[in-house]
Amino acid sequence: MNKKGLAILMRTKMRPLSPTFASSKSKLNQMQTSQLEGDKVSSQDASLLPEREFSQVRESMHSAMSTNKTEIVDVALDEFSEGYFFLSPENRYKMLLSLAKEYDLNRTQVRELMKQHLDLQLPSDKAEDSGHEEEGSLSAFYRIERNLRQALKPMYEVLFERLNTHPGGLKFLSDIRADILCLLGDVNIASLRALDSHLKEKLITWLSPANLELHNITWDDPASLLEKIVAYEAVHPISNLIDLKRRLGIGRRCFGYFHPAIPGEPLIFIEVALMKDVAATIQEVLWDNPPISEHEASCAIFYSISSTQPGLSGINLGKFLIKRVVDVVKKDMPNICVFATLSPIPGYRQWLLSKLASSEMTGSAFKEILLRPEEEKALMDASGGSDLGSSGIEVMWNVLTSKNHEWTKSPNLVSALRTPMMRLCARYLMKEKKRGKALDSVANFHLQNGAMIGRLNWMADRSQKGLTQSAGIMVNYIYRLDNIEDSAQAYQNEGHIESSSDFKSCIEDDNGEKAD
Amino acid sequence: MNKKGLAILMRTKMRPLSPTFASSKSKLNQMQTSQLEGDKVSSQDASLLPEREFSQVRESMHSAMSTNKTEIVDVALDEFSEGYFFLSPENRYKMLLSLAKEYDLNRTQVRELMKQHLDLQLPSDKAEDSGHEEEGSLSAFYRIERNLRQALKPMYEVLFERLNTHPGGLKFLSDIRADILCLLGDVNIASLRALDSHLKEKLITWLSPANLELHNITWDDPASLLEKIVAYEAVHPISNLIDLKRRLGIGRRCFGYFHPAIPGEPLIFIEVALMKDVAATIQEVLWDNPPISEHEASCAIFYSISSTQPGLSGINLGKFLIKRVVDVVKKDMPNICVFATLSPIPGYRQWLLSKLASSEMTGSAFKEILLRPEEEKALMDASGGSDLGSSGIEVMWNVLTSKNHEWTKSPNLVSALRTPMMRLCARYLMKEKKRGKALDSVANFHLQNGAMIGRLNWMADRSQKGLTQSAGIMVNYIYRLDNIEDSAQAYQNEGHIESSSDFKSCIEDDNGEKAD
Repeated sequence: MNKKGLAILMRTKMRPLSPTFASSKSKLNQMQTSQLEGDKVSSQDASLLPEREFSQVRESMHSAMSTNKTEIVDVALDEFSEGYFFLSPENRYKMLLSLAKEYDLNRTQVRELMKQHLDLQLPSDKAEDSGHEEEGSLSAFYRIERNLRQALKPMYEVLFERLNTHPGGLKFLSDIRADILCLLGDVNIASLRALDSHLKEKLITWLSPANLELHNITWDDPASLLEKIVAYEAVHPISNLIDLKRRLGIGRRCFGYFHPAIPGEPLIFIEVALMKDVAATIQEVLWDNPPISEHEASCAIFYSISSTQPGLSGINLGKFLIKRVVDVVKKDMPNICVFATLSPIPGYRQWLLSKLASSEMTGSAFKEILLRPEEEKALMDASGGSDLGSSGIEVMWNVLTSKNHEWTKSPNLVSALRTPMMRLCARYLMKEKKRGKALDSVANFHLQNGAMIGRLNWMADRSQKGLTQSAGIMVNYIYRLDNIEDSAQAYQNEGHIESSSDFKSCIEDDNGEKAD
Repeated sequence: MNKKGLAILMRTKMRPLSPTFASSKSKLNQMQTSQLEGDKVSSQDASLLPEREFSQVRESMHSAMSTNKTEIVDVALDEFSEGYFFLSPENRYKMLLSLAKEYDLNRTQVRELMKQHLDLQLPSDKAEDSGHEEEGSLSAFYRIERNLRQALKPMYEVLFERLNTHPGGLKFLSDIRADILCLLGDVNIASLRALDSHLKEKLITWLSPANLELHNITWDDPASLLEKIVAYEAVHPISNLIDLKRRLGIGRRCFGYFHPAIPGEPLIFIEVALMKDVAATIQEVLWDNPPISEHEASCAIFYSISSTQPGLSGINLGKFLIKRVVDVVKKDMPNICVFATLSPIPGYRQWLLSKLASSEMTGSAFKEILLRPEEEKALMDASGGSDLGSSGIEVMWNVLTSKNHEWTKSPNLVSALRTPMMRLCARYLMKEKKRGKALDSVANFHLQNGAMIGRLNWMADRSQKGLTQSAGIMVNYIYRLDNIEDSAQAYQNEGHIESSSDFKSCIEDDNGEKAD
């Protein structure tokens, strides 16, 4: 890596957010989207450039779909994708809505074909080889169905398809989808939802694992690529160059999934630590020195997985990435026999706070018993005399909402919180569901991939982020290779969550907890 | 390349055809298909293996579609694709028909959805932003249309999609389609045609140019790859190792389009000769020594383009390949400014023979004048006294159907034939159409890619094949880079064929040729 590369690398985290559409909205991962788009206009500050004419950009969008001459289409696609980025948020909104509404399908034509189909007589149910006669009558069905399939394609699919084979187009489609998702967070418009669902389906096809390349990212890779890793790392931010180098060094791996049409940046990447035992704190993984030599390792710990494209939300590339990485690591190092994660529990603290709040507010008859008597006592003892509250619940609330997580500096509080916090966390992971799936997004991700819950780890992540998300608790999800498929199926079909016996016992203690 | 590689390479052309489905049929390029499938069973002679149980293979095909457990699907896909190749031609036919008929779409469900759609009231025509009310009513349309799109997918699409992401599956799909096309050459079954059209559409998506890699094939490539080039070369067969080496040596290029899922063999490849002038005979390209040094070259002559997969018939990869190769060559060697082909005219002799035959048979009033008086005279003079016939037409017929093309040994005949043969050939290329497109398949290919007809070359290919196809005439199609798109459009839309002024004058001479 040359000096310029290093300088850029170190500046990455400091680049100011550019005033783009996505960053002016709120729903998506703002930092990522705006840094992404920041790249596009890095040589000129977008805010200094004149706003593009809406009508001009719209015209190029229209030609890109309606012309058949490749040269004109190519120019129009360039103009559209360039111009789009310089539109104001309002005009992007107008553009996307115009695409969704005015380039939809021709419903009159669709219904005409439906009527033709319904006018035909269905062949008898017996699907026996009744010879060419029946075949002949089927002919008309096939013809109408083919035409109907065509007619059911909205016109904007042409734009998507042309962008897909146009240089830079696939990335642009992903950026457009990020904007659509942002919008859908604020407004609920049927045609926009349809636009999103079409685009998502197309992206799923184009980004099928068969089209993706796995690359082992190392310190020898170009600075322009490593810069992306720094920028996109979403779980444990990379704080400096030594941090990054360590994550790519001995006992560590970083694998990315790349698409040929989006060179130089992974769509998703995963960071792996090779260790003797399943890591219990992020400290061990990120900072403890020195890492063991690789031939002593028996565990591969996935400690971070980051998607780089907000526009690919809902397209599960991580599942395939993990499978591929397990295969590669197993082949490379047969001594590795445990594949586990060290994962955050992003929704735990928020969930617990809402439980504590409602427990305080509801009448005692229907009050959920969150704390056991011995836990209540321990908490009151630990808070001894301070103004943290007059009940265990109140103490817990005040502790968890204290400024700068000051409770972590009191060994008494840390110790008294441990049992109830771990017990409630296990309940949160195992029992709290949304539409039959784990409420916690990271839990849902690994469980649908076929992992099981292994172990909870107390004070495993003392960073601001870790304390805010889950009061510092982290969890190991275990990928048992002979069970992945069955677990994924059981979770998918029945919402069944597999867990280790340790973890189970923690939950069993929690029985009969509800008042009634 | 090691010795074993060389030995295999030299044996390639001699490998006996294995008794496969495709080779037992007749419509497709037999040699290629059977060699292809020969590879699969190269270690065991297929004819010695027991016929697989039809029901067993059918069962695996069924599980591959109907199960959701990845492991079972993977095993089923393996069993199906392996078992399929050991079925007798009759059983393959039964299998494909069963796939087409029993795994079609659910028509009752489709019609139910259609009725729901037709029951809804279309929103008013005015597509103005009439606010969220209209959006709400659209919601139902979008929902039904999404369901209908899903219901219109035949169940066998699941099999195609799963095969596509399964190792070896894409190649297997192409092999299956080769069989379907073979069948459709013999029987006209609506459900089988529908199966083919679905599969073709999927293959077009998966083999989009964005997913293909261009590779410059050289003598340093593995023998296993070069063996494929020898086997698949369809235009000018590669006769020996020196021939192959020369085609990959100085002044020559060979480019292949590869798909990551079909490693080690190109889907299509093109051979290029770098020359001072546009080649007028295949002799200059293939045999004349020595080739000029590359920096003296100003022309890139595409002298052979071969598809390797009969199952990709109708999917125009050649167009994209030529464009990519032109770009690569132009960038690599700015001194190259002419891009042209030296192409066979595969349908000319056959067309001419049928013209001669009907001209002999029809009454003189409507008789087409094929030969001009001076041509007639020259032919009679050249045949002087021999028993070649009593009219120019008769002489021509007898000459063109003579055993071993003996006419080529008579300078008098060769000279007398030249004028009428070239004139009629120009007419054949320019005027003979089928559904508005050039009748000659190679002409149609290059014209739809945007080339123009450049020059006819007399006695350009004296090989058995060349004499049989076109009495030895070859043609140069010219790719004028600033005109490709316009030419392709004009041909596509109006069937307009562009040609050089030389060629045009040849045709103009032919005016007023019709009697009456």
